[in-house]
Amino acid sequence: MIILGVDPGIAIVGIGIIEYSGNKFNVLNYRAITTTTKNTLPERLEIIYDELNDIINLYKPDAFALEELFFNQNVKTAITVGQARGIAVLTAQKNKIPIYEYTPLQVKQAVVGYGRADKKQVQQMVKVLLNLKEIPKPDDVADALAIAICHAHTNNMSNFFMMR
Amino acid sequence: MIILGVDPGIAIVGIGIIEYSGNKFNVLNYRAITTTTKNTLPERLEIIYDELNDIINLYKPDAFALEELFFNQNVKTAITVGQARGIAVLTAQKNKIPIYEYTPLQVKQAVVGYGRADKKQVQQMVKVLLNLKEIPKPDDVADALAIAICHAHTNNMSNFFMMR
Repeated sequence: MIILGVDPGIAIVGIGIIEYSGNKFNVLNYRAITTTTKNTLPERLEIIYDELNDIINLYKPDAFALEELFFNQNVKTAITVGQARGIAVLTAQKNKIPIYEYTPLQVKQAVVGYGRADKKQVQQMVKVLLNLKEIPKPDDVADALAIAICHAHTNNMSNFFMMR
Repeated sequence: MIILGVDPGIAIVGIGIIEYSGNKFNVLNYRAITTTTKNTLPERLEIIYDELNDIINLYKPDAFALEELFFNQNVKTAITVGQARGIAVLTAQKNKIPIYEYTPLQVKQAVVGYGRADKKQVQQMVKVLLNLKEIPKPDDVADALAIAICHAHTNNMSNFFMMR
């Protein structure tokens, strides 16, 4: 099963693509889609849509996983992240890929084993589980890989986590 | 000039399409795109994208106008509205339609003549200016028409209001 984990934002969209079979992980790619204020917001949304679409066409993932949004951000951030997130979800939907959503707690539990793990511990486990030489940068990319791992580890009951 | 005014939300997207030439308004159409919780969020975003796309293909607007988002909502609302708004902006961008953004103050000033006008006054002026028999319902549709009127009235300096 090929899993695309995504951590959407307007400036950085973290992308992690892993293959999971027989309890083994194989990392296919990880990177960030980045946009800057040199472009207008509509252009930035289009860049995210187009690049994510290219990634989906290339890797043909069986599942698209992202984190449920935090509600502890400020309202301006929430709107901006919401716009980028909407684009990410639409891109998956247009490509008919099932979309799964996990809480930060679920991601930590699935990757580290307990829900109170800190960011560093999650990143360290991403590195170990995926057999990487270094922790992927920026954080958004490590987060995207963590979300993909979370989906792999909870996939036996994945219907519970399909985005509603 | 054909102007598409849009008031995006996840359950209701207000749509107003007007033609403005020689200081005269001609209403081409107004309606709401609606979605319900019978569909998943990804499906709802896709419905908005597809229906808005159909409207754009049908009317081929020269301008796409929407309101700057309020920052006085709660965070959960902001994320949800942000997602729908991102889809609306992407749809216009993909169709290469210039996108303009106005503050609520600008809309009130352009439609009623002063920025402290209340919702009822704006709706009444929409009805009068567009020569409608009744105030369009729901409010989101009247709002979308008000935004389109705002763009028509400020179009001589519209470069100032292109979405950044």
